[in-house]
Amino acid sequence: MVQTHDISRPSRTLVEGLAAIGSASASAEISRMGIRDSHICGPVSFTPGKCIAGPALTLQFMPLREDLYGTDEYADPEKQLHRHVLYHTQPGDIVVVDARGDMRSGVFGEMMLTYFMGRGGAGVVVDGCIRDGAAAKALGIGLWLRGTTPNFHTQTGIFPFAVNVPVACGNRLVMPGDIIVADDDGAVVVPAKLVAAVREKASVHHEWEEFSRLRLREGGDLRRYYPLSDEAYPEYETWKRSQGE
Amino acid sequence: MVQTHDISRPSRTLVEGLAAIGSASASAEISRMGIRDSHICGPVSFTPGKCIAGPALTLQFMPLREDLYGTDEYADPEKQLHRHVLYHTQPGDIVVVDARGDMRSGVFGEMMLTYFMGRGGAGVVVDGCIRDGAAAKALGIGLWLRGTTPNFHTQTGIFPFAVNVPVACGNRLVMPGDIIVADDDGAVVVPAKLVAAVREKASVHHEWEEFSRLRLREGGDLRRYYPLSDEAYPEYETWKRSQGE
Amino acid sequence: MVQTHDISRPSRTLVEGLAAIGSASASAEISRMGIRDSHICGPVSFTPGKCIAGPALTLQFMPLREDLYGTDEYADPEKQLHRHVLYHTQPGDIVVVDARGDMRSGVFGEMMLTYFMGRGGAGVVVDGCIRDGAAAKALGIGLWLRGTTPNFHTQTGIFPFAVNVPVACGNRLVMPGDIIVADDDGAVVVPAKLVAAVREKASVHHEWEEFSRLRLREGGDLRRYYPLSDEAYPEYETWKRSQGE
Amino acid sequence: MVQTHDISRPSRTLVEGLAAIGSASASAEISRMGIRDSHICGPVSFTPGKCIAGPALTLQFMPLREDLYGTDEYADPEKQLHRHVLYHTQPGDIVVVDARGDMRSGVFGEMMLTYFMGRGGAGVVVDGCIRDGAAAKALGIGLWLRGTTPNFHTQTGIFPFAVNVPVACGNRLVMPGDIIVADDDGAVVVPAKLVAAVREKASVHHEWEEFSRLRLREGGDLRRYYPLSDEAYPEYETWKRSQGE
Amino acid sequence: MVQTHDISRPSRTLVEGLAAIGSASASAEISRMGIRDSHICGPVSFTPGKCIAGPALTLQFMPLREDLYGTDEYADPEKQLHRHVLYHTQPGDIVVVDARGDMRSGVFGEMMLTYFMGRGGAGVVVDGCIRDGAAAKALGIGLWLRGTTPNFHTQTGIFPFAVNVPVACGNRLVMPGDIIVADDDGAVVVPAKLVAAVREKASVHHEWEEFSRLRLREGGDLRRYYPLSDEAYPEYETWKRSQGE
Amino acid sequence: MVQTHDISRPSRTLVEGLAAIGSASASAEISRMGIRDSHICGPVSFTPGKCIAGPALTLQFMPLREDLYGTDEYADPEKQLHRHVLYHTQPGDIVVVDARGDMRSGVFGEMMLTYFMGRGGAGVVVDGCIRDGAAAKALGIGLWLRGTTPNFHTQTGIFPFAVNVPVACGNRLVMPGDIIVADDDGAVVVPAKLVAAVREKASVHHEWEEFSRLRLREGGDLRRYYPLSDEAYPEYETWKRSQGE
Repeated sequence: MVQTHDISRPSRTLVEGLAAIGSASASAEISRMGIRDSHICGPVSFTPGKCIAGPALTLQFMPLREDLYGTDEYADPEKQLHRHVLYHTQPGDIVVVDARGDMRSGVFGEMMLTYFMGRGGAGVVVDGCIRDGAAAKALGIGLWLRGTTPNFHTQTGIFPFAVNVPVACGNRLVMPGDIIVADDDGAVVVPAKLVAAVREKASVHHEWEEFSRLRLREGGDLRRYYPLSDEAYPEYETWKRSQGE
Repeated sequence: MVQTHDISRPSRTLVEGLAAIGSASASAEISRMGIRDSHICGPVSFTPGKCIAGPALTLQFMPLREDLYGTDEYADPEKQLHRHVLYHTQPGDIVVVDARGDMRSGVFGEMMLTYFMGRGGAGVVVDGCIRDGAAAKALGIGLWLRGTTPNFHTQTGIFPFAVNVPVACGNRLVMPGDIIVADDDGAVVVPAKLVAAVREKASVHHEWEEFSRLRLREGGDLRRYYPLSDEAYPEYETWKRSQGE
Repeated sequence: MVQTHDISRPSRTLVEGLAAIGSASASAEISRMGIRDSHICGPVSFTPGKCIAGPALTLQFMPLREDLYGTDEYADPEKQLHRHVLYHTQPGDIVVVDARGDMRSGVFGEMMLTYFMGRGGAGVVVDGCIRDGAAAKALGIGLWLRGTTPNFHTQTGIFPFAVNVPVACGNRLVMPGDIIVADDDGAVVVPAKLVAAVREKASVHHEWEEFSRLRLREGGDLRRYYPLSDEAYPEYETWKRSQGE
Repeated sequence: MVQTHDISRPSRTLVEGLAAIGSASASAEISRMGIRDSHICGPVSFTPGKCIAGPALTLQFMPLREDLYGTDEYADPEKQLHRHVLYHTQPGDIVVVDARGDMRSGVFGEMMLTYFMGRGGAGVVVDGCIRDGAAAKALGIGLWLRGTTPNFHTQTGIFPFAVNVPVACGNRLVMPGDIIVADDDGAVVVPAKLVAAVREKASVHHEWEEFSRLRLREGGDLRRYYPLSDEAYPEYETWKRSQGE
Repeated sequence: MVQTHDISRPSRTLVEGLAAIGSASASAEISRMGIRDSHICGPVSFTPGKCIAGPALTLQFMPLREDLYGTDEYADPEKQLHRHVLYHTQPGDIVVVDARGDMRSGVFGEMMLTYFMGRGGAGVVVDGCIRDGAAAKALGIGLWLRGTTPNFHTQTGIFPFAVNVPVACGNRLVMPGDIIVADDDGAVVVPAKLVAAVREKASVHHEWEEFSRLRLREGGDLRRYYPLSDEAYPEYETWKRSQGE
Repeated sequence: MVQTHDISRPSRTLVEGLAAIGSASASAEISRMGIRDSHICGPVSFTPGKCIAGPALTLQFMPLREDLYGTDEYADPEKQLHRHVLYHTQPGDIVVVDARGDMRSGVFGEMMLTYFMGRGGAGVVVDGCIRDGAAAKALGIGLWLRGTTPNFHTQTGIFPFAVNVPVACGNRLVMPGDIIVADDDGAVVVPAKLVAAVREKASVHHEWEEFSRLRLREGGDLRRYYPLSDEAYPEYETWKRSQGE
């Protein structure tokens, strides 16, 4: 009988703060902490407007080898590892799949993703494809993918090999339990131990940004308003007071 | 004078059933019949929501050779083979184009596709690009493409070479008259002689799937509901009876 | 202190006519003038429906070299060349960026593009990515991109190197001040000195095209209606008179 | 029983002259006749020093489709089309294979190529791989390939589909009977009807080139010696006379 | 302290037989046993003429993550996993490295490979690069690589992550202890449990092949001599007897 | 008349020391100075055994635009910029060409390279191809290339645009006058101002390396001999004394 490990998860509150920060701020902060590139490059948003953060359940695919995997998908579903990663789903979880960039295998279909949604899953990041893309979009979870295909997950060149192990996804290393922040710009990996620090730093937002955005929209000078110059500071304070009224 | 062959078509009724089945089921059934991969990999849906099935008219492009093709597009339109494939259009037909994955040539423009639509054409699958993409989308036909380009069809590196011959499209072999099933997940080739079998097998849908989908959405256990377990069967029967009321 | 050159611009009236012509007609006319391929191949429309034309401000990125560029983005903003190209913005301008096809660097973010919009900029064409894609789309400017990324512009492998110099973008050479025509089909480069000629030629549209389009939609014969045949000419004239009523 | 067409061949004398000219001169001359690019781009020389010219026998592979090709290589050898193209071999012939750039299929092995050599074949140009590469090199024929693989020709994703039909090889269109000129720089397609013209033009070599080469080797000025300047002409004539002695 | 597992090895005699068979025969036999493709596609021979077989020690690289790996190569050599895989070397072993196809990292340099050679290692298969390529070639071991680079193993985008775990190399799954057969055509994976069967089947060579090769070289008919026809059998027997003299 | 700038060159003595150090040591030292990757990735050695170092003359190609470059190669040779970069050749110089990775254009042919050799040029690094490859190899200069082609330099998609300007070559930024170190492992860029430092650091070679190499060849323990351990130090000293005899 297949046994796979669960992951450890930080508090929901801590994680949810990252969704508010967004992928761009998260990537920049992590970069300043010494991790040059945390962007999972390849999978793109299939659910515009979705912005989520959550701990990573991981699924690793390997090149298909017929002596290690039979071809009949339905012979014994309980042997299929792409099911097992979903069994670990807790509310807010994100499944990260190293599908080797394959465009000819649909890692999950509608029924698998419906189960994942029913269990409270937040989204999936696949370095590859899913099938039943239209139905999957309608589920309300977030999807970051290379594409869709009508093929099922072991139909061509890959097969699921391990659950909740370190995986490479979009040329980034993702450890089980790392936090994923994903929105329209893409998905970012936040190492579990850096979550608190990233959240704290990224939340020190510049209060004057809203003011600067307004001025720039009206044709204001970039040098004066972004970043906010000393010359423009009194103007900003006046505006700020007027906002409070 | 250019002469090109027509294709033979199965009955419309037979073909239309395949559209209802969809590309994912078609691909899986064909796979079980021994054809590993029937997905035309490369062209993606430009008309989300469109789901069609129909016989393939084929058009083959070749690398441009100036001694075999002049450069003036409008000198003698009747010599242009991309027109000739459209002359064969019958209601429900799908044009499959081997454009060699070229991103710098727009195989068809608005006028060609308007004619195709007027003749009842169902859609086009191009391993390459079209131009006038916005107008083409508005026509109501289905489009599976690698992209769009402002360039016309013989402007850069390819030219139309043959009509209704075997072509490679998206790394699949398509014979003239094969049936294409295409929807949001992509386009699939069904060999003409397998159409009846695919339709029959794919229509043996599991009646319990609707029930299972409901339960999974509510957080039901994948092991219990998909595939439907013996334990859950009585529950399913109760639900089914309640539906009949 | 950084000094960069401005570009010279043709009259707004002249340029605006090109937007009405569209990228497909522009590409075809330029092709007939001897420039085989003017399509900036790679960046695709992220703002469907947008159709613009304007003079090119150019920004060249180079592979990052740490001895020539420090890593702290905010140390001295005035040294950042991606700001300087925007300082030149005049109403209707289009920024063309050679970002080397890089998918791991976001050339501009929301604040930069807000400033550009505030100054009347028409759009940007990036052979690479931007960040804050969702906010950028909402600004109302046109965007032609390879994609989006959460990373900032010098976070990974490239850095801004020169402003308003000749650049390669999407495998086309763009000279500062060339005119860009961009719509859903893609972006096209019109050499500054050919603008008047392209506009004149492309505006000689075939009056019968509207008529032909109508007939083709109704199932009319391509050979009769496109291009309009002598046989169909009387029918066209009758239709034309009926339109005038 | 499989029947395939033979090709028509120009006189051996005519063709052999092209080998002396070499691929670079042939490409340049054809370019001046209006065919921009005749280089079969992709296959590279595996037999350095070999320089050949000969008429093209062609073999087209297509994506494997299991309903059209069985998997047992040895069931009925006479059905294998890669054998049939070789049956047409006459002394000096060159086999051109569109193997779709595939790196996982070895189009020919040692025995096939031994037969080809025994029949007087001059060389093969494969847009893909062969197997038994070391033994093949030892045969003395010319080989232009993308690489080698241990796999046999129908083991993975392609199968031989047609013999002596037009093929695309290295993104060039090759008609059966076209002349191939191949050496260390690569392989070039000379349309059959241009052979005489190419040979004539390319043989008008500049007599002064040998002289110029000598001077350049000694550090002579490029402006003076290449192309030969009027100033250097007397020096060349003096040298020429001294050679005759 | 780093601890890594060793592999289990079949008897040397059994394995050595595979080297005599060669990669092409091994690949074909494994294919007939149901494993479609056993070719490690990507790494090519850098040591022409070398033909080896041996059990696989495996080394897995992952995308570099600065929080998990420091940048100073020489701080504590004993932490470097690319050393540890070599510590397991026994005579005849082959190191298989999943270097993710990276062209900017040299997985091993001269000193590491000298140690490997000194311990009796037979060769390395790297889906990526080594450095000190010229010195490595001179060591006498077999090398199958994508290329060489001056960069060291953790200089750019990857770092060694695990030893003697399942790895993907050249799009094939290699289990620690599988047998690699590698020669000029490339490297092939033989699952440990199939070694005896492959060796047995592949050694049933056709005695007539030498005879057929001779006849084909002399211009003999492929249909008569390959495979050997009934008509040619008496001729073969006569030849065979003459050989025995 | 075309005027192009010359470069400034460090002393020959300083530069020649770098050739002795080799590309691998140079890359590692530069990496430790903060420039992560100095490897010109793409061009590979076509002249095995050659190891050179010298200042970079640079040549930039751009995508061909017919309004900016005529098609007749021989109309006015003095307008051809690929000649002008060679006019600057001084003994030991290395020409670095950004040919945009193009495989269909031969940047230099035999005559150009003969002149370069005659002037004392040390080698060329081309992110693209040359033609007349066999003759070029015979000249004795070093060649680092992506490949060869029979096509001439402006035959297809690029043309020479600027001389001795900053260029991107193999995804590295090369400034005119930077020092190139190239050998069998590849080519490396050393910023002009770092040459002395790199040379100094890289020449602090470990005297024990020769000893360690010997021991490793004999099967010595990596942990004992590389890097040289304290335990092995006395053994090393004994060996060293014995060498002196």
